Amino acid sequence: MKADKTKITRLLKTARGQLDGLLKMVEDDRYCIDISNQLMATQAILRKANCEIMHAHLNSCVREAFEEGDSLRTQEKLDEIMEMMDKLSK
Amino acid sequence: MKADKTKITRLLKTARGQLDGLLKMVEDDRYCIDISNQLMATQAILRKANCEIMHAHLNSCVREAFEEGDSLRTQEKLDEIMEMMDKLSK
Amino acid sequence: MKADKTKITRLLKTARGQLDGLLKMVEDDRYCIDISNQLMATQAILRKANCEIMHAHLNSCVREAFEEGDSLRTQEKLDEIMEMMDKLSK
Amino acid sequence: MKADKTKITRLLKTARGQLDGLLKMVEDDRYCIDISNQLMATQAILRKANCEIMHAHLNSCVREAFEEGDSLRTQEKLDEIMEMMDKLSK
Repeated sequence: MKADKTKITRLLKTARGQLDGLLKMVEDDRYCIDISNQLMATQAILRKANCEIMHAHLNSCVREAFEEGDSLRTQEKLDEIMEMMDKLSK
Repeated sequence: MKADKTKITRLLKTARGQLDGLLKMVEDDRYCIDISNQLMATQAILRKANCEIMHAHLNSCVREAFEEGDSLRTQEKLDEIMEMMDKLSK
Repeated sequence: MKADKTKITRLLKTARGQLDGLLKMVEDDRYCIDISNQLMATQAILRKANCEIMHAHLNSCVREAFEEGDSLRTQEKLDEIMEMMDKLSK
Repeated sequence: MKADKTKITRLLKTARGQLDGLLKMVEDDRYCIDISNQLMATQAILRKANCEIMHAHLNSCVREAFEEGDSLRTQEKLDEIMEMMDKLSK
């Protein structure tokens, strides 16, 4: 992975900490809406991590594949980006 | 929270397990797209948990507030649903 | 529909005007990204219209169904909201 | 635009026809949920058009920029894709 490891690790650990918090909220029988809001905050962190990963991917893996000029690898990269965009569009 | 605690706990623990896996993938310097796909799978689990929570919330908290006929609490519930829909619409 | 008709009509007409603009952009062979950005702006307007419609729906149809106390209609309304939330969550 | 013009034009015209239908539904004071469902169907068509446009963009404009090897244009293309992904991630 080409994204800043420290940054991604920090985001993933924050999300994991929030999941621990969420498990506690469920156990403590907290109010549905409070749990739901916290869940959506965790989803936002994962979305942010995914954006960071995709940016770095484009700026390194994709760029390099193109610079090497290997048309098979180039097509592979373009296909992966399309698949990713299709998933994000849903 | 009115959703099935066992089910929500299982979903959250699955997501947490996947985050542990993701932290390992980052540490092992796995391919960006593989990490991104795994991240989106985790987001899908959290979305599923949120849907379950909202369904149970509507079928219990919201229904009860209306059945009690307390117009202040009723408005509060409606406002919460609107806020949730606005967030989901983004 | 319980939302402000004038407001919803204005939003829908704006979106329709943008679609006319988009058809012209396609015909004029404009740049992909410009067309894509315009398309997403149109989607944002439709999302806004949908939010307005759902707010008014909750504040009138749903509220009334509950106030009438008809449990069959009440369930129908709750089911519709759940279905809508599921769609928005995708 | 590099996507199939006939296909994109057909999708945009379908969406425009649905907006005409929606304006009629609003005028006829149809049920909120029916209007909302129709609105979301129209949004799905625009999403589909946007996916088609982005696929063709990647497979032509982006590929060509890279093949020409102009690093400034290459960076421009990568920046546009990132911006698009960020918008889709919201």
